[in-house]
Amino acid sequence: MASNAPTFSPLYRQIKSLIVQALESGEWRPGEAIPSEQELAARFGVSQGTVRKAVDELAAENVLVRKQGKGTFVVSHHDPRQFFRFLRLVPDDGSLTQPQSVPLDCWRAKAGQEAARVLQIPVGDPIIILRRVLKFSGKPVVLDEIYLPGEVFEGLTLDTLKEWKGSLYSFFETRFGVRMLRAEEHIRAVAADRMAAETLGVKEGTPLLSVERVTYTYNDRPVEWRRGRYLTTQYHYHNELT
Amino acid sequence: MASNAPTFSPLYRQIKSLIVQALESGEWRPGEAIPSEQELAARFGVSQGTVRKAVDELAAENVLVRKQGKGTFVVSHHDPRQFFRFLRLVPDDGSLTQPQSVPLDCWRAKAGQEAARVLQIPVGDPIIILRRVLKFSGKPVVLDEIYLPGEVFEGLTLDTLKEWKGSLYSFFETRFGVRMLRAEEHIRAVAADRMAAETLGVKEGTPLLSVERVTYTYNDRPVEWRRGRYLTTQYHYHNELT
Repeated sequence: MASNAPTFSPLYRQIKSLIVQALESGEWRPGEAIPSEQELAARFGVSQGTVRKAVDELAAENVLVRKQGKGTFVVSHHDPRQFFRFLRLVPDDGSLTQPQSVPLDCWRAKAGQEAARVLQIPVGDPIIILRRVLKFSGKPVVLDEIYLPGEVFEGLTLDTLKEWKGSLYSFFETRFGVRMLRAEEHIRAVAADRMAAETLGVKEGTPLLSVERVTYTYNDRPVEWRRGRYLTTQYHYHNELT
Repeated sequence: MASNAPTFSPLYRQIKSLIVQALESGEWRPGEAIPSEQELAARFGVSQGTVRKAVDELAAENVLVRKQGKGTFVVSHHDPRQFFRFLRLVPDDGSLTQPQSVPLDCWRAKAGQEAARVLQIPVGDPIIILRRVLKFSGKPVVLDEIYLPGEVFEGLTLDTLKEWKGSLYSFFETRFGVRMLRAEEHIRAVAADRMAAETLGVKEGTPLLSVERVTYTYNDRPVEWRRGRYLTTQYHYHNELT
């Protein structure tokens, strides 16, 4: 077993970290199958049951996905089923059209106090700020302002963004190898400021949902901070409590 | 094995339904321990592994909770850890004070089209409507309007509500044997109407979070429909996406 495995945790947790390390290093890429439980058991020198327990947890966390009769795969943002994992806004009428992402602008800046704190980078480090609109059936419904650590997303430009046809997270995955694993959202009601009002085609002061999100990759490392404004007259944020 | 077990589903699922039936009938009550896996295996005539798989799923669904070295218990709304399972509103400053529920009024009505549809009862059936405020540190932050099926909550009055010191769901559990197992919420931003504005001490038109919830008990049976208005200037709705 690798000597850098963390101590004082159950064996399956140590195996889980080793699998995460391999994923993080890009040994198995999004959409690809990982080795069988038997092969992983041999590699790490543990029982298949221990590997299974580690894989169980990674599947529950949506890092891996088991496909019956086919094996275990690295979850990819290209999978259409992943799309609404991070976007909880759905039309009231129940229709399920894939929204279209329209980039508005993209510029470089230095991290201020707040961006530095949220992204866990030093104040003054390069960040990339981008704004985009999400259109549902051609109508603007979401205005997002997105803050990214410049080091991770080096080379991101408005043009490359505009050329991309899929979701933003599939773009991040393909171009920068960044996988979004989990996010925390803070949701409030706010009055539309002028920019949001103009972009979404409503009056200033219209109540909008403010969705502030921090998104994490492997090892709970924050790689995105975004502030969204959602117009919720014909759409709602759907949440399941269990 | 009981003859009324559903067919065409894996054995452990059938055992799961039998456990749910026993829970629903009140054989094991909230907060109480259920029999050991060995005893359940003997009772249902299946292996302990099958019982364990059924209990695993019920634990993942927050119906049962395993306590190390003590056994498996029926989850109760009296458990303080259950409190924020259904209330996702938290103070921005991170303080964790338990809010206080203040009942405002409670009256009887007949289900209209919408309440009947949501609660899956016939139009015209008795319902109970109650309004209450949630105060955080003495300040009103949430106004809830709650629709309940009259048959399930027979005998509920404003006085019995006012006497209760705990949460609404612990009241429902104790007085009516109703356990809330899961909920779906539709969240929007709306402008405060006069009643919400007066209750929450803000100007009419102030943006508020509208949280519409349908809550389900065993067998996905809806037993509550509520419309909440949350003041989110110093509080936010917290959500984790995984």
